[in-house]
Amino acid sequence: MKNHYQNLVHSTIPVSKSIGWRIEALSATTIRASTQLKPNINIHQTAFAGSLYAAAMASAWTLLKCCGDALEYKAELVAAEGNIQYLKPVPNDFLISGEINTQSEQYLKLLERVSLNQSCAFKQSVEIHCDSQLCAILTVQFVFKV
Amino acid sequence: MKNHYQNLVHSTIPVSKSIGWRIEALSATTIRASTQLKPNINIHQTAFAGSLYAAAMASAWTLLKCCGDALEYKAELVAAEGNIQYLKPVPNDFLISGEINTQSEQYLKLLERVSLNQSCAFKQSVEIHCDSQLCAILTVQFVFKV
Repeated sequence: MKNHYQNLVHSTIPVSKSIGWRIEALSATTIRASTQLKPNINIHQTAFAGSLYAAAMASAWTLLKCCGDALEYKAELVAAEGNIQYLKPVPNDFLISGEINTQSEQYLKLLERVSLNQSCAFKQSVEIHCDSQLCAILTVQFVFKV
Repeated sequence: MKNHYQNLVHSTIPVSKSIGWRIEALSATTIRASTQLKPNINIHQTAFAGSLYAAAMASAWTLLKCCGDALEYKAELVAAEGNIQYLKPVPNDFLISGEINTQSEQYLKLLERVSLNQSCAFKQSVEIHCDSQLCAILTVQFVFKV
């Protein structure tokens, strides 16, 4: 599963490859990805805020795409809004992790919409860690569009 | 001025170059930048949400950096939070524009903090246009750190 989505994202979103993003582990409800610092360096020798967002967005999109595919949801997945909080500078290669809460109200709603073949909004967060510290949190309002 | 900041950003934030971002016009209070679609394409043949954010962040950072330099503000410029609203898909090369409101309360506060050589927060928005349509708005909470 990891290799399938790795190839899908690298081939269809080439910037994910150029920033050194790759999937370390993936299931229909969890993702762990890594990104290299070097192509994303900024003037302070830490990761550029825009690269942190792009890597986190690639991760969040992949997680939701994988989830939708597992549910056989015939929908395009697009982002409507993104919010990122930068908590600490990122001075090294970094990890991105996210988990879909399958106990949440929005997940139950998603299952219903899949069964009805209707569009559905879904909000998902992913965290960026570097050197074992939480450095940023991205929250994306996605829409599965039928 | 444009060439100085173009070189500064491309050399210190290399991802700005790899996504095909460049400055078209720059002053201490306005920026206009362009970005190529091709390196930023996504699975829908439009611009990847993460690339739109990165290009807009590079633009907003450059605008504020140029403003701070013009005021001789001896401060590092970092992002604390970013919020982007995606209004329409971006199917072609796109433009980013932003303007600092020098009549705003936060700008007057900025001038005061510069004169006192103290840190200062500053919120700035930039817009992404493609094919003459407003496609996304990024708002960044920056901090000038002394």
